[in-house]
Amino acid sequence: MAIASDQRQSLELTKSLSTNKLSIEEFLALPETKPASEYIDGQIYQKPMPQFQHSTFQIEIATAINLIGKPQKLAFAFPELRCTFGDVSIVPDIAVMRWANIPFLPNKRVANEAPVAPDWIIEILSPDQSPLRVMNKISSAITNGSELGWLISPAQDFIMVYEGDRFPEKMIGKDVLPVLDVLNWQVTVDDVFNLLCLE
Amino acid sequence: MAIASDQRQSLELTKSLSTNKLSIEEFLALPETKPASEYIDGQIYQKPMPQFQHSTFQIEIATAINLIGKPQKLAFAFPELRCTFGDVSIVPDIAVMRWANIPFLPNKRVANEAPVAPDWIIEILSPDQSPLRVMNKISSAITNGSELGWLISPAQDFIMVYEGDRFPEKMIGKDVLPVLDVLNWQVTVDDVFNLLCLE
Repeated sequence: MAIASDQRQSLELTKSLSTNKLSIEEFLALPETKPASEYIDGQIYQKPMPQFQHSTFQIEIATAINLIGKPQKLAFAFPELRCTFGDVSIVPDIAVMRWANIPFLPNKRVANEAPVAPDWIIEILSPDQSPLRVMNKISSAITNGSELGWLISPAQDFIMVYEGDRFPEKMIGKDVLPVLDVLNWQVTVDDVFNLLCLE
Repeated sequence: MAIASDQRQSLELTKSLSTNKLSIEEFLALPETKPASEYIDGQIYQKPMPQFQHSTFQIEIATAINLIGKPQKLAFAFPELRCTFGDVSIVPDIAVMRWANIPFLPNKRVANEAPVAPDWIIEILSPDQSPLRVMNKISSAITNGSELGWLISPAQDFIMVYEGDRFPEKMIGKDVLPVLDVLNWQVTVDDVFNLLCLE
């Protein structure tokens, strides 16, 4: 138990340090914090524990987008991709990129590194995750170059939509959600939540 | 810079503590470590930074599996799902479950929590990630109830295959990979690596 207690202290130290401001260069120079942590407004935050509903949304939404975006090379949805752009470094649950913004190697494979803003980010709220913190993550992404953001709240069956500098809009039920303009996709909030049924 | 330095010390403290043995209950009682960390053999490890190739494999392989497994309710591939079973708690890059092992709610949605062993785990080696550590993660999963494991090495174009207690097999080129028996899927190592071309 002493070990667990020390570990907790250490984590609390990390946590309390994150209330101080680090530069993005300082954040990026900390390899150990990269996988789990995001850098937003000079603060470091950790992503929550991924559960079944989160994982289901991630694969089902990304698959739905790629079904439309990939055959015609319009856009592609990447799950769990580190995106460092402007003064943020985040790992959106889903990062959608217009095809022209995807980096390719001469051998035609996707290249590994590219500090670009995802055109559209989708976040799925986890139980116990702070909605305000995730809203701030999406706002920061948009301020730094992203065009569109969705915040999905599975506990409340609504989706907050961020488009440019407009006030975010709460959409429910049969509301048709905005998507990237290159995609010809008519999708409602109900359609998104029905993805959880795997049907 | 003082802040970054403190943060590094704190991280090193966390790291050095992870060389001591925690029980899985103690690990699970540490909410802050859950998103980023995995518990294998009483040790805590952090997942690496997710890059484009990693994310591309994750979505393309999971989509390919679900295209076959979902319509007939045979199996489903979940990206980034926390799996706690036996004495490990891991977040496989892809966790594939036989349909019967997926937890559903009365409203037909996927339920959030279920301490089950994924039937098949797929890991994608990241640059700078220790192959031995990931091999150990797959071995531990199999020892604790998983049936099949793939370890994809993008830098070397091979896939290590773990099946039950057998010696892992290195597969290349036109080798046909084993998949869950419920899936009727003929896939070669080349097929998997071609997924990186998004074609």
